[in-house]
Amino acid sequence: MAVNLHIPSESDIFAVNGVEIGIAEAGIRKAGRRDLTVFRLVEGAQVAGVFTRNRFRAAPVQVCEQHLAAGKGIRALVINTGNANAGTGEPGLQATRRTCDELAGLLGLSPEQILPFSTGVILEPLPVDRLVAALPAAIAGLDAGQWFAAAHSIMTTDTQPKIHSRRIALDGVTVTITGISKGAGMIRPNMATMLGFLATDAAIDGALLAGLTREIADRSFNRITVDGDTSTNDSFIIMATGQSGAPVVASRNDPRFATLQQALTEAALELAQKIVRDAEGATKFMTIRVEQAASPEEALKVAYAIAQSPLVKTAFYASDPNLGRILCAIGYAGIDDLDVGKVSLWLGDTLVASRGERHPDYQEEDGQRVMKEPEIDVRVALGRGEASETVYTCDFSHEYVSINADYRS
Amino acid sequence: MAVNLHIPSESDIFAVNGVEIGIAEAGIRKAGRRDLTVFRLVEGAQVAGVFTRNRFRAAPVQVCEQHLAAGKGIRALVINTGNANAGTGEPGLQATRRTCDELAGLLGLSPEQILPFSTGVILEPLPVDRLVAALPAAIAGLDAGQWFAAAHSIMTTDTQPKIHSRRIALDGVTVTITGISKGAGMIRPNMATMLGFLATDAAIDGALLAGLTREIADRSFNRITVDGDTSTNDSFIIMATGQSGAPVVASRNDPRFATLQQALTEAALELAQKIVRDAEGATKFMTIRVEQAASPEEALKVAYAIAQSPLVKTAFYASDPNLGRILCAIGYAGIDDLDVGKVSLWLGDTLVASRGERHPDYQEEDGQRVMKEPEIDVRVALGRGEASETVYTCDFSHEYVSINADYRS
Repeated sequence: MAVNLHIPSESDIFAVNGVEIGIAEAGIRKAGRRDLTVFRLVEGAQVAGVFTRNRFRAAPVQVCEQHLAAGKGIRALVINTGNANAGTGEPGLQATRRTCDELAGLLGLSPEQILPFSTGVILEPLPVDRLVAALPAAIAGLDAGQWFAAAHSIMTTDTQPKIHSRRIALDGVTVTITGISKGAGMIRPNMATMLGFLATDAAIDGALLAGLTREIADRSFNRITVDGDTSTNDSFIIMATGQSGAPVVASRNDPRFATLQQALTEAALELAQKIVRDAEGATKFMTIRVEQAASPEEALKVAYAIAQSPLVKTAFYASDPNLGRILCAIGYAGIDDLDVGKVSLWLGDTLVASRGERHPDYQEEDGQRVMKEPEIDVRVALGRGEASETVYTCDFSHEYVSINADYRS
Repeated sequence: MAVNLHIPSESDIFAVNGVEIGIAEAGIRKAGRRDLTVFRLVEGAQVAGVFTRNRFRAAPVQVCEQHLAAGKGIRALVINTGNANAGTGEPGLQATRRTCDELAGLLGLSPEQILPFSTGVILEPLPVDRLVAALPAAIAGLDAGQWFAAAHSIMTTDTQPKIHSRRIALDGVTVTITGISKGAGMIRPNMATMLGFLATDAAIDGALLAGLTREIADRSFNRITVDGDTSTNDSFIIMATGQSGAPVVASRNDPRFATLQQALTEAALELAQKIVRDAEGATKFMTIRVEQAASPEEALKVAYAIAQSPLVKTAFYASDPNLGRILCAIGYAGIDDLDVGKVSLWLGDTLVASRGERHPDYQEEDGQRVMKEPEIDVRVALGRGEASETVYTCDFSHEYVSINADYRS
């Protein structure tokens, strides 16, 4: 029941020069499921990543950070579903290191050139023997045309694959950007139970890419919330292979930087929004925009208070314009000196409340009409300053409870 | 489907000397429902209150604070259900003031001696004409034996009345403590969509009672959460009529202070826990205790992160010991320098995780056994210090979604 989640056709997905993908069945949690994905990158590719801020960082997240810091040039990624390898202590780290060692041996790389990722159940040992045994099959299938298959193989409770591809011209050279993501619950900024992998054949300086990756995460995957839970495994990776033939973008002053930045940001936002559209049990997609805040932090506080309120989310599920629940969330968002007499609230184009109270012209039918749409814009003006922020979320349904009550069974 | 919510028999509820209660049908939202409650207090009663910290404070909350500050001696309370009179601006304040004026006229008091309370839907005008028209009927029924009826008449989405009564000896004099509360959703500390009224015939100095009321709120109504929403109308009131014959407790050094403090705190905690037990859709009652924290604030952060995680709450609903979700919540609670290697987790008496990972002796059957109980203790040790805090919450069920998606219809 994903909300307006566009699944492109195979022909709309462009391979990225310098990226090959192989997939296999490792039987991590269930047999007969393609649960292991390997990315191989051409030599010289630049890779940057952003990881969860949860203090319980999964073993693969810890190893990713070490390997990125080692600076030996990332040449492969390995991703398993079915087990998060989180809360698994030293044995979990050993399992991840063994995965990297084995893959490095098979590909003729050093272990520090591998980035590992896991997603699935927390607090259970990773069946690393089964994972390692399936690596040769994944490698045997390495091929540039496997993006769609990869979007499928990294899914957990996702109902739909999440994939996006585009081409841009960079000074007359065609550059490809293709990415996949996964995630449906335990979704909140910094980051979500999500994995996002974005590749381009553009060439970009490594240090510049690292900063850009962080900025892009903040404007995409860090602006979505489903249930307010930040997972142990969230990872977002940008890979730039440099194989398009376009010259290296080496500084922010390079006129091509802005073009590339915008295209990568749009692609990441698209992949992030797909996670919300396919969120567990979602029937509505909501864009929450908070304007006239004194600071971006303040705007985000209010946006998240609204986006994460179970009462607001169930009202959207019911298409019930019970909009006092939104005012209530604004009121407890944590702005101590908020003057509620300056607050306005719009639902779509309808002005619901102004000066902190119901607007005299507001008719419940108008609210009802907007609430019945599958895509709803909520806009709040705080009357405090110039900052504004936008957050994306979904409603809260019976289906969410069913999925999360039954996930492991 | 309330969880182990004890409803005492009529004979276990003691009237409080100096308190009379009258109830009427005002037709605020629906006809044929007893939705208006008036408390009349004897002259000389001391009254103190604690109110929501939501910036959208309902009109009655604003008026309560003004009237308590006026210092003329509170002599009556008036409570309506069906409409919260919140987000209603100046007309809402006028409606509340008119309610107080009319009741004051009928009882021969000044308006500043009245405390008004409203609970129900936000952002809709209070039908004050209907409310005022029913005041004479409520007054005509004033009687000391109406506590049970009052517990019923202040209910909204509550499925059960919440009432508690006890007697203690204060230096040989019998003192009565009786209270009622309401609330089932939009429940979170500071405070909940809750109303709590606690009365005693003990005599206590007014300033002392004001401080004590705040402390008691912090140890009872401010330690419960259902869905993380803090409402616009939360109010907790303690009334001390001084009619028991026991001498006035005038200082903290008075040996009777500790006895009274403990009895009032226990009564308030009982009323607060009843709200969680009757929480919308609850099937489990959970006590979350966080120990070895560096500060009480830190312990509360972790306890609330666990108590408010939809993933944790749905796992409890499913009796699924998916305990990695608890570790995950600890990890994102906001303690930046948390050493996860020092974290332990118990479910009931079962040690689930130690040193941040699954304990080697932990068996899933043991977790499953505890999870199936209707009352579950979760205990976390952070290994950082001496502070500990306890929070009470419930699980998250299909029924919660149904209730909140259908509330207004």
